Amino acid sequence: MFGNGSESRLRDLEIMPGLLSAPVLLAAVSSSLGKPETRTAPKPERVPQTLSRGWGDELIWAQTYEEALYRAKSSTKFLMVIFHLENCPHSSALKKAFAENKKIQKMADEDFILLNLVFETTDKHLSPDGQYVPRILFVDPSLTVRADITGRYADRLYAYEPSDVGLPISNMKKAKKLLKTEL
Amino acid sequence: MFGNGSESRLRDLEIMPGLLSAPVLLAAVSSSLGKPETRTAPKPERVPQTLSRGWGDELIWAQTYEEALYRAKSSTKFLMVIFHLENCPHSSALKKAFAENKKIQKMADEDFILLNLVFETTDKHLSPDGQYVPRILFVDPSLTVRADITGRYADRLYAYEPSDVGLPISNMKKAKKLLKTEL
Repeated sequence: MFGNGSESRLRDLEIMPGLLSAPVLLAAVSSSLGKPETRTAPKPERVPQTLSRGWGDELIWAQTYEEALYRAKSSTKFLMVIFHLENCPHSSALKKAFAENKKIQKMADEDFILLNLVFETTDKHLSPDGQYVPRILFVDPSLTVRADITGRYADRLYAYEPSDVGLPISNMKKAKKLLKTEL
Repeated sequence: MFGNGSESRLRDLEIMPGLLSAPVLLAAVSSSLGKPETRTAPKPERVPQTLSRGWGDELIWAQTYEEALYRAKSSTKFLMVIFHLENCPHSSALKKAFAENKKIQKMADEDFILLNLVFETTDKHLSPDGQYVPRILFVDPSLTVRADITGRYADRLYAYEPSDVGLPISNMKKAKKLLKTEL
């Protein structure tokens, strides 16, 4: 089920460094040694920054995890937390697929509280198997991180490939169904 | 020093409700009894939300408190945390004054890490005398909330009036000076 091809591709995912329990800037760290990463100093581009960061300009995005949790609880919706990095090609590819998929955008708009982060939170439940990007975690309205809603890779359970948008879609449907049955 | 006029005006500041230690949505609560507030349901306006929220579109804004702390520490700059609410007239007036003042914008751009929040964090140090808006807290690069940098009102130490932009300016200068002397 987890072929070599997929696994080696997954090894290329960017890793979010975890500096003790201190807040961690998600610097893009290339896992391919010997190739020094170009410096990722923030470019002072003076275009207004958006909360969507390209994941769906028409969607309503929470700014902070605290806000997102509050909204999930009070609206009885699932929260989707998308961890990504601006200059990570895997993140960018997934973002493009996410933003261009009408089904995802519609479901995200109607049924989910949305948060995208380029910075780790202090909640360790959001990184059950590491602080890599891109990764998507679902949190139910009782504010439990649903580590049981996963992608298809055993070594990066919350990673998704842009070529496989069916999987986030079916996980979003799964979350919606859980609202009616379990919660 | 604290005349009646100022004090009664300050009493009209919006209060951020504190729901135990749970994350708190900063709902606009009118303190004038008998006048029921119109409902503040989020309007699904489909303009992309910006991180600046009107406090300076050309400035670089941190998204989360964790990110802002990290950036303050790593850049050895002071962090300014601005708490406000979208539909609070005092917040809007201060925002306008802040965004239109070239001196403030220049100093903010060059010398500060910036964060504006419409949602409380879990860090109680950011609300030394309550969760009202608008209020501005300074955090130094050692990540100490500088409760000693205050406005002019004894009962709302971190509130600022839009008519008095000289005060945030002098506090920003004070913070810059502290970098050279104390820190």
